Amino acid sequence: MTDVTTLLNADPLILQALREDISSEDVTTNAIMPEAKMGEAQLICKEDGVIAGLPIFKRTFELLDEATVVDLKVKDGDAVKKGELLAVVKGDIRVLLSGERTALNYLQRMSGIATYTSKVAVLLEGSKTKLLDTRKTTPNNRLFEKYAVKVGGGYNHRYNLSDGVLIKDNHIGAAGSVFEAVKRAKDYAPFVRKIEVEVETLEMVKEAVEAGADIIMLDNMSHEQMKEAIAIIDGRAETECSGNITKENVKAISDLGVDYVSSGALTHSAPILDVSLKNLHTI
Amino acid sequence: MTDVTTLLNADPLILQALREDISSEDVTTNAIMPEAKMGEAQLICKEDGVIAGLPIFKRTFELLDEATVVDLKVKDGDAVKKGELLAVVKGDIRVLLSGERTALNYLQRMSGIATYTSKVAVLLEGSKTKLLDTRKTTPNNRLFEKYAVKVGGGYNHRYNLSDGVLIKDNHIGAAGSVFEAVKRAKDYAPFVRKIEVEVETLEMVKEAVEAGADIIMLDNMSHEQMKEAIAIIDGRAETECSGNITKENVKAISDLGVDYVSSGALTHSAPILDVSLKNLHTI
Amino acid sequence: MTDVTTLLNADPLILQALREDISSEDVTTNAIMPEAKMGEAQLICKEDGVIAGLPIFKRTFELLDEATVVDLKVKDGDAVKKGELLAVVKGDIRVLLSGERTALNYLQRMSGIATYTSKVAVLLEGSKTKLLDTRKTTPNNRLFEKYAVKVGGGYNHRYNLSDGVLIKDNHIGAAGSVFEAVKRAKDYAPFVRKIEVEVETLEMVKEAVEAGADIIMLDNMSHEQMKEAIAIIDGRAETECSGNITKENVKAISDLGVDYVSSGALTHSAPILDVSLKNLHTI
Amino acid sequence: MTDVTTLLNADPLILQALREDISSEDVTTNAIMPEAKMGEAQLICKEDGVIAGLPIFKRTFELLDEATVVDLKVKDGDAVKKGELLAVVKGDIRVLLSGERTALNYLQRMSGIATYTSKVAVLLEGSKTKLLDTRKTTPNNRLFEKYAVKVGGGYNHRYNLSDGVLIKDNHIGAAGSVFEAVKRAKDYAPFVRKIEVEVETLEMVKEAVEAGADIIMLDNMSHEQMKEAIAIIDGRAETECSGNITKENVKAISDLGVDYVSSGALTHSAPILDVSLKNLHTI
Amino acid sequence: MTDVTTLLNADPLILQALREDISSEDVTTNAIMPEAKMGEAQLICKEDGVIAGLPIFKRTFELLDEATVVDLKVKDGDAVKKGELLAVVKGDIRVLLSGERTALNYLQRMSGIATYTSKVAVLLEGSKTKLLDTRKTTPNNRLFEKYAVKVGGGYNHRYNLSDGVLIKDNHIGAAGSVFEAVKRAKDYAPFVRKIEVEVETLEMVKEAVEAGADIIMLDNMSHEQMKEAIAIIDGRAETECSGNITKENVKAISDLGVDYVSSGALTHSAPILDVSLKNLHTI
Amino acid sequence: MTDVTTLLNADPLILQALREDISSEDVTTNAIMPEAKMGEAQLICKEDGVIAGLPIFKRTFELLDEATVVDLKVKDGDAVKKGELLAVVKGDIRVLLSGERTALNYLQRMSGIATYTSKVAVLLEGSKTKLLDTRKTTPNNRLFEKYAVKVGGGYNHRYNLSDGVLIKDNHIGAAGSVFEAVKRAKDYAPFVRKIEVEVETLEMVKEAVEAGADIIMLDNMSHEQMKEAIAIIDGRAETECSGNITKENVKAISDLGVDYVSSGALTHSAPILDVSLKNLHTI
Repeated sequence: MTDVTTLLNADPLILQALREDISSEDVTTNAIMPEAKMGEAQLICKEDGVIAGLPIFKRTFELLDEATVVDLKVKDGDAVKKGELLAVVKGDIRVLLSGERTALNYLQRMSGIATYTSKVAVLLEGSKTKLLDTRKTTPNNRLFEKYAVKVGGGYNHRYNLSDGVLIKDNHIGAAGSVFEAVKRAKDYAPFVRKIEVEVETLEMVKEAVEAGADIIMLDNMSHEQMKEAIAIIDGRAETECSGNITKENVKAISDLGVDYVSSGALTHSAPILDVSLKNLHTI
Repeated sequence: MTDVTTLLNADPLILQALREDISSEDVTTNAIMPEAKMGEAQLICKEDGVIAGLPIFKRTFELLDEATVVDLKVKDGDAVKKGELLAVVKGDIRVLLSGERTALNYLQRMSGIATYTSKVAVLLEGSKTKLLDTRKTTPNNRLFEKYAVKVGGGYNHRYNLSDGVLIKDNHIGAAGSVFEAVKRAKDYAPFVRKIEVEVETLEMVKEAVEAGADIIMLDNMSHEQMKEAIAIIDGRAETECSGNITKENVKAISDLGVDYVSSGALTHSAPILDVSLKNLHTI
Repeated sequence: MTDVTTLLNADPLILQALREDISSEDVTTNAIMPEAKMGEAQLICKEDGVIAGLPIFKRTFELLDEATVVDLKVKDGDAVKKGELLAVVKGDIRVLLSGERTALNYLQRMSGIATYTSKVAVLLEGSKTKLLDTRKTTPNNRLFEKYAVKVGGGYNHRYNLSDGVLIKDNHIGAAGSVFEAVKRAKDYAPFVRKIEVEVETLEMVKEAVEAGADIIMLDNMSHEQMKEAIAIIDGRAETECSGNITKENVKAISDLGVDYVSSGALTHSAPILDVSLKNLHTI
Repeated sequence: MTDVTTLLNADPLILQALREDISSEDVTTNAIMPEAKMGEAQLICKEDGVIAGLPIFKRTFELLDEATVVDLKVKDGDAVKKGELLAVVKGDIRVLLSGERTALNYLQRMSGIATYTSKVAVLLEGSKTKLLDTRKTTPNNRLFEKYAVKVGGGYNHRYNLSDGVLIKDNHIGAAGSVFEAVKRAKDYAPFVRKIEVEVETLEMVKEAVEAGADIIMLDNMSHEQMKEAIAIIDGRAETECSGNITKENVKAISDLGVDYVSSGALTHSAPILDVSLKNLHTI
Repeated sequence: MTDVTTLLNADPLILQALREDISSEDVTTNAIMPEAKMGEAQLICKEDGVIAGLPIFKRTFELLDEATVVDLKVKDGDAVKKGELLAVVKGDIRVLLSGERTALNYLQRMSGIATYTSKVAVLLEGSKTKLLDTRKTTPNNRLFEKYAVKVGGGYNHRYNLSDGVLIKDNHIGAAGSVFEAVKRAKDYAPFVRKIEVEVETLEMVKEAVEAGADIIMLDNMSHEQMKEAIAIIDGRAETECSGNITKENVKAISDLGVDYVSSGALTHSAPILDVSLKNLHTI
Repeated sequence: MTDVTTLLNADPLILQALREDISSEDVTTNAIMPEAKMGEAQLICKEDGVIAGLPIFKRTFELLDEATVVDLKVKDGDAVKKGELLAVVKGDIRVLLSGERTALNYLQRMSGIATYTSKVAVLLEGSKTKLLDTRKTTPNNRLFEKYAVKVGGGYNHRYNLSDGVLIKDNHIGAAGSVFEAVKRAKDYAPFVRKIEVEVETLEMVKEAVEAGADIIMLDNMSHEQMKEAIAIIDGRAETECSGNITKENVKAISDLGVDYVSSGALTHSAPILDVSLKNLHTI
């Protein structure tokens, strides 16, 4: 993330998370350590993976105390190994204790997503198919989770309902036809939007192509259906396969020549990457 | 959650999540469906598990339009089966489309946590050991995730740094001794707090008991160490085991007679439970 | 605006505007009218134009008191005449007095934009050229102003920096070439974005086409240059003319066969449409 | 504006405007310029006018990055000429690109108001009549617009409904008489408020004087009526003329010896002053 | 307070107070009472006084649950007696338990201020002197405390630094003279403001009168000085005495013929009026 | 307060208080002092007491202008004397004028509470009884008021409804018995909570002890009843006496051997300590 993104859109969420964890005060630390004392701790990786979220980790401490120094030894997107030193954090030991959990909660989750994404993305290497995320993100964490997908080698689908058009079944029903739905969308949506249509049958595929959809999403189709659909589209629109994308089947789907596969699991089911703040001591 | 909790503390987060997904407008729906039209959809379970978050799912639609009716067929904590009908949602179809993703993001995640928790909790049945969560929650989702742990049969550790005292290594270092640290905490913290001390050696166990700790957390100890520690404590304080608690080892740890085991994985690594809104149609 | 848009994104801004006008209390009304009393007023148009913002006008009173009834006689986009009755507002007369100014400030401004836009848009009728707005909106009023442009017959360009890609001079300089800039944008931006490039010379036009830009903005070019540019592009990208678009020259530019013209004046310099609440009286 | 005003009351609005324009990230800039690079640009005036809002322009960039340096060449209230260099902005070129539009939206609008105001105010020079603004400001921009009026040589009427008493028709109706309305207002309102009464007939003028109004607003009266009214008042209250004040008639009204004329057009219909950030380049 | 004031400006503060008291959930109530059950309680006065804040007391419960019914038996400003029934509250007993403390904290404090104010105000009955409050209010409670002063029979001085002009020593020093300070204020401040000058010597009194001050505050003057000052002013400005106003000396000061006396103690040192919610029981 | 507490939880409240006092601008200061000028003032104590809130006093000025220097001569908890110099404040004199009232409002109130608390706490010296506060705090000031109690030598009861369990009459009624209520609370509440039960009869005392309550609150009992109750409890739970604790009776209650006495008056009825900013002058 650039500094502008962080300042405008990440900072308020990080502060909110800190206040979730410190709703009045860090009572243990305040009880025992009334005075500032300089301390240092090491950020250590506890399993192999792809690291993501170091700027957020760093920012969490800086928001608590701008004098905190986080010396990063690696950068977002790096493959990291169990036992590797990722960063050294120096500052008022009370700040380190109060910010540790929130900083790690972000870093572990973002790195978990990047790690999982990279494992899927690597299966697509050499193909033209790109791996997309979805809107199946944790509430109030989309900024962080979509960023982590990119760090892991994936690509972002639309950010939210406001910045992308995706015409579904019910939209088509309301419009009366695929053609009419696409027409209304082109007329209404900011002209920088591509128009995507979600289809479930080959008949709908044809209609979507003819209606001038920019992207056609093949939703929950069988392998055979997807193959036919891509043949019908024949380059006249970009293609996206969605639904039950797994590490097991992603390569086979890619071989069909689809442009994109999208997977909700990247953000909704990646386990965290275990990262820990160790050896905290006064200096 | 009671209505008061929802209104005061969940509603602002749900609205924030809705605004994350609709930063200006739902452009597809607004383009194609300028007028309200009544619709209905079914909430269907797509895998077995424990459901949690139905009041949040319901509330998401109500916050968008108080006229939306969500008819729940099951309740939080129920074991649900693949294919089971969980609820019927009726209202302006535009509201259903605009709120679907946010409502499901909450429900899937909370149900994933409840499901995972129940799988661990069941292993402790018949023992005196209780399963605890940690502060390793997703930022700005703690209210929902801690609730889901309880729905799944777990218990809550402290909510945050403000409402519980947990004296760690560094606190002890700063105080000079376990005894002094406990003393300062008792003097400073609101008197309704229990004082918990995290220990890593048997020597510290003894000191903690003598200092009058209410709870002693045995952190990352070996099985043998834990056994000895519990013997030393001998009922003079409550005991909690923490660190690398897995489905595989939780029963053996429980057999040591520990009062609590705590597991970060309940909230940081549970995959979602797949739940879906199907058959959305106008009525 | 649909109800969802209003509730999530307009309501907070309207309430903020009401609090800007009533920072502690409406001191005159509270001094003189301590008790509720039903009243009624007429919303009258004081000059010819296109009305826009009636739902916001209505919502302003409802947010102050949900019992207020605003009976609309026309709808957004209607051509209205001097002296025409637009609506009747009924409710606690204190609410009418306290909300009047804020409600009218929105309505007058939005209707001013719709009126001005319709005057330019009418000049493009019969051509393929569409009239676009820009990001030159009043701070914290973009939602309302972009909506008013659409009501007036215009189309929306990107909503903000997050939902559209527009590569300018400096981006190209930083990337090293138009080609590299477009490549980076395609790689980074959510895949539903079209890529637009702003060009100032015919050389850049060629590069932009070859780089695969979806839209090419001809910025501040002479009539002759625009003509040549459109010939070079030859349908391989959408075209947008920008800079000094006036009622006087818009038809001539359209005749060049450009797809879009964009005009900041629609939102930054449209005078208001005079609309007034009259005959307020108790009932 | 003083620093205190800016910090407490302008900063939150500027940040909100920046977030309106960057709801998640500046996707173009982030795609193409992942690293900071120092840049510089010139703020150039593109038409003659009175400049207002330079501190807000400056603050917008500082809020994005406190290292940005804005070197102002003129100050608020200065008459500026087409082509004149107003400021030089130096900083991370990504910050300049991300903040440009919001900074200019404020500056152009505020300068437009100051320019328009000064054109009307100059007509009153030599007379005792002062030019006032109204509450017909753009929602959530009153702080900036009322300041711009002062920069342009105008004076501020009350800021909002909370800080000034203005008794209208309906208030009088509710109270039963002008006398009673003024009495209630004097009794209720903070004692530092002057009491203003809006009148439409000469009868009401007399009542208002007798009731002890501090200020009498002659609303939408004919020239002849205003003349008589001022004669009746005869210095026993301050006088304000309001309604359809134009550049054409303001001098004639002033000649009647009125203390104040107020004009909504100053804030609701002033076109912007065209100001532009040019020659942005890396340094 | 009118409904508009409450909705716009009191509601956000009441909700904030409720969230201060319920930062995640009312853990006792949620533990023991998972289901709604109707209950009823009596609001009883425990000492004699003047009641103030009943609408805020009522609103607190309504904000938690709009179905709560608060049946008021008295109204703000009424003299109440020990043991008197002030209201009956009916609703979900969990709502009554969760809201009780916040509702009472407002009511007790506001009634304490009204009671204390009325005791001072009564001493001024029959004189022309009015009793004023100050800005010495509890942070983030000014709306409630200034309202309570009025309920108790006092009058409000300026609400805050934005809505009143009060020229002090240092302002005069910066301006160079009382005359220049008053001139600058008249030129700058919204024209509905009266100009008040704080003076400490008789010399300054004369200057203030000559400068055209609307109000002259005699700050910390001796009885004798005040007497002379009022004679000097001789009706050419309103007069206010401030500093060490006590129940003991207020009558004597009033006898000097001063228009206003102001007292910070009304809001900063009034003890609460004891009011209690009793006999809470299910129905 | 530590810096972390201040930054996360006090700063937003202080800024809110400053905005309460400066809703648009400090109109007097801005009128008269358009340019910064360095000034200095002395914080002087005007009566004997215990000072509390100096870091908040300091922070108020720093939040307005980080260049302000507040040189503290004493620290929170110090006994201060009438006439004593507490601090010297240096900075832009406009900042000193604009922040003075808010800074003093916090300091006076917090010092009033600390002073009052210390007067009660001193009566308990030599006994084992500790003095507790309650939740009877001023809305949106709990953080400051509970801190002031500690500074004055008192101890904090629970912070709010979320971080402590206190089972009252109605909870017991809903549960059916003291035993069942305690059981439910232990099952539901985070396990770090102590369980407190409020009792009014000796019968309930017995039940509470048997149910395993950690703390038993004797509410509004007679001296004799309290004595018996403490004998019944006999060390098996902590004991708290509440209701009508006064300076007069607190020693006698302490002599009964109770662990805690709690007093709402500490926060709801302490008069302020008079502290003043004097000798403000330019330097």
